[in-house]
Amino acid sequence: MDGLTIAVIGATGAVGRVFLRIVEERRFPVASVRLCASERSWGKTIPVNGHTVTVEEATPELLGEVDIVFIAAGGDVSRELAPMAVERGAIVIDKSAAFRMDPDVPLVVPEVNADDLEDNRGIISSPNCSTTPLVMALKALDDVNPVTRVIADTYQSVSGTGAAAVAELRTQSGQALSGGAIEPEQYPHQIAFNVLPHIERFLDNGYTTEEMKMVHETRKIMHRPELAVSATCVRVPVMVGHSEAVHVEFERPMVPSEVAEILSGSPGIQLLDDPHANVYPLPIDAEGRDPVFVGRVRRDESRPGGIVMWLVSDNLRKGAALNAIQIAEELVSRELLPARGRR
Amino acid sequence: MDGLTIAVIGATGAVGRVFLRIVEERRFPVASVRLCASERSWGKTIPVNGHTVTVEEATPELLGEVDIVFIAAGGDVSRELAPMAVERGAIVIDKSAAFRMDPDVPLVVPEVNADDLEDNRGIISSPNCSTTPLVMALKALDDVNPVTRVIADTYQSVSGTGAAAVAELRTQSGQALSGGAIEPEQYPHQIAFNVLPHIERFLDNGYTTEEMKMVHETRKIMHRPELAVSATCVRVPVMVGHSEAVHVEFERPMVPSEVAEILSGSPGIQLLDDPHANVYPLPIDAEGRDPVFVGRVRRDESRPGGIVMWLVSDNLRKGAALNAIQIAEELVSRELLPARGRR
Repeated sequence: MDGLTIAVIGATGAVGRVFLRIVEERRFPVASVRLCASERSWGKTIPVNGHTVTVEEATPELLGEVDIVFIAAGGDVSRELAPMAVERGAIVIDKSAAFRMDPDVPLVVPEVNADDLEDNRGIISSPNCSTTPLVMALKALDDVNPVTRVIADTYQSVSGTGAAAVAELRTQSGQALSGGAIEPEQYPHQIAFNVLPHIERFLDNGYTTEEMKMVHETRKIMHRPELAVSATCVRVPVMVGHSEAVHVEFERPMVPSEVAEILSGSPGIQLLDDPHANVYPLPIDAEGRDPVFVGRVRRDESRPGGIVMWLVSDNLRKGAALNAIQIAEELVSRELLPARGRR
Repeated sequence: MDGLTIAVIGATGAVGRVFLRIVEERRFPVASVRLCASERSWGKTIPVNGHTVTVEEATPELLGEVDIVFIAAGGDVSRELAPMAVERGAIVIDKSAAFRMDPDVPLVVPEVNADDLEDNRGIISSPNCSTTPLVMALKALDDVNPVTRVIADTYQSVSGTGAAAVAELRTQSGQALSGGAIEPEQYPHQIAFNVLPHIERFLDNGYTTEEMKMVHETRKIMHRPELAVSATCVRVPVMVGHSEAVHVEFERPMVPSEVAEILSGSPGIQLLDDPHANVYPLPIDAEGRDPVFVGRVRRDESRPGGIVMWLVSDNLRKGAALNAIQIAEELVSRELLPARGRR
């Protein structure tokens, strides 16, 4: 193997597993991969690029031996390990919310704001899985006609919570079908055959942290600190794939045909919009695929010049692992890796 | 039995079955009940108020022998039978969309616009199951501070499609869990572990008929023909209970505490809004219950003075059967039944 040395923290989780698959798919230039996870996974082996890699502890020594550290293991892990890795000369691409709103940390969707990578100080954040597809569509439109207001109501899959939540949806669904008792563990209420208007935790303004991430991260990524954004984030009994009903207003009136034209020419976006033929984005179709799918583009009947659309993306790919790898690819092509990484 | 004679068309369907349960629960004053359905159900028996009633054909003679005809069997059936029943002296309460936008037909949610019943010409329509809970909440607020714009994105259960769709969700869920092949019948795509941004059929403006019902019916019921309304209607893998993320703007700024106070004092509405204790409306909790449940009332972060909230109601009850029975109760108390009905 020739190329970079990377460490993946959270290698056994839902995002980590997809991450390793995408590293292989995209032939990301890795010389060696170190896999880290919590203690109960130490010693397990995972095949990567035809090699068998053993899961180990994320020690300071290990972090000092790699070029790039990918972290997809929750905010506490990121807060502990990211500064440690940077201190030892690695660059960190972090999936957690820990550093996203830090003014010294670029929050990047490569198709949208790759230039922000130039100012990094060692940590780069990847956005929340419902923010990434939204900004991909918004930025393409904003470049042509400034967006003035966004409302997004989401339909988010359980894999966004993690592998245990996917297992819980399966278990609960079977129990519900057979009339068995259901005891929620991953969520405060039953998720099978139900929808929960509750993702993460509630803030004093009545929004959840997930909803406010969509507000704040969208503003930061689009460099529009005053952009009017509101969201309701809802967990639905879907395994993989986040969907969003999005209402957008613009400085000047926008028509659906123009939106469709802009989006179909935008990198990372695929238009699926032929409703009379039952063609529109669906989470079961988006699973395992890279694009952000957009459909049902139409006038907002409640606001002249406004647009309504429907977005779906694989929350584990573009919403998480793929975006992180794209950030790394961008760092390589811009020669932004620390000295060690440019050998 | 002492009281009215009624016929229920569509007695064996999802709404019809709930209808008969509510007739018993509310001790609706019926002297006799005639049950009608499509040919394959003729001769079946259904217990009503302790009597065994045989399902029969909806003949002109039968329609001429009853005071009130409830129809919950699709628009074509309503278009055929409703005028026939009215001609024979019955009053028709119709659940279908067939007559809802007819200017001569009142479209009624009793808590909102019961006075419209006074002008009926024999047919009264009950609104679409996602419109009814929305107007209940909107009208209460509109009376205090005129509503200027509404965006509603829905999370609608399969029972809104009918009993066969409930069976299909069960079957498909089992197949998906066991890795079996899935062949959609009730919907153009798999509904198990998926969401479909497609309810009913698509119009030329890119909206579905279901979405445009929310626009037009809301305006008619609220007597606000110019009200700005937009919706995205989405089918979710839930058995019973429609949920809605609703964004409302008003003439004057509104604060969440005022909205909560107004709604908690409104007939037919129950506030469930203590998110820090994980209390908010859920479809599995709403099933089998009468109120429209409202929670997650908060400021619209994208519009000063606007409000966001989350509504859930049992689409077979307040969204359908209960509202129809409440219309009948209102006709009785207002002495609006045709001569035969006032005996």
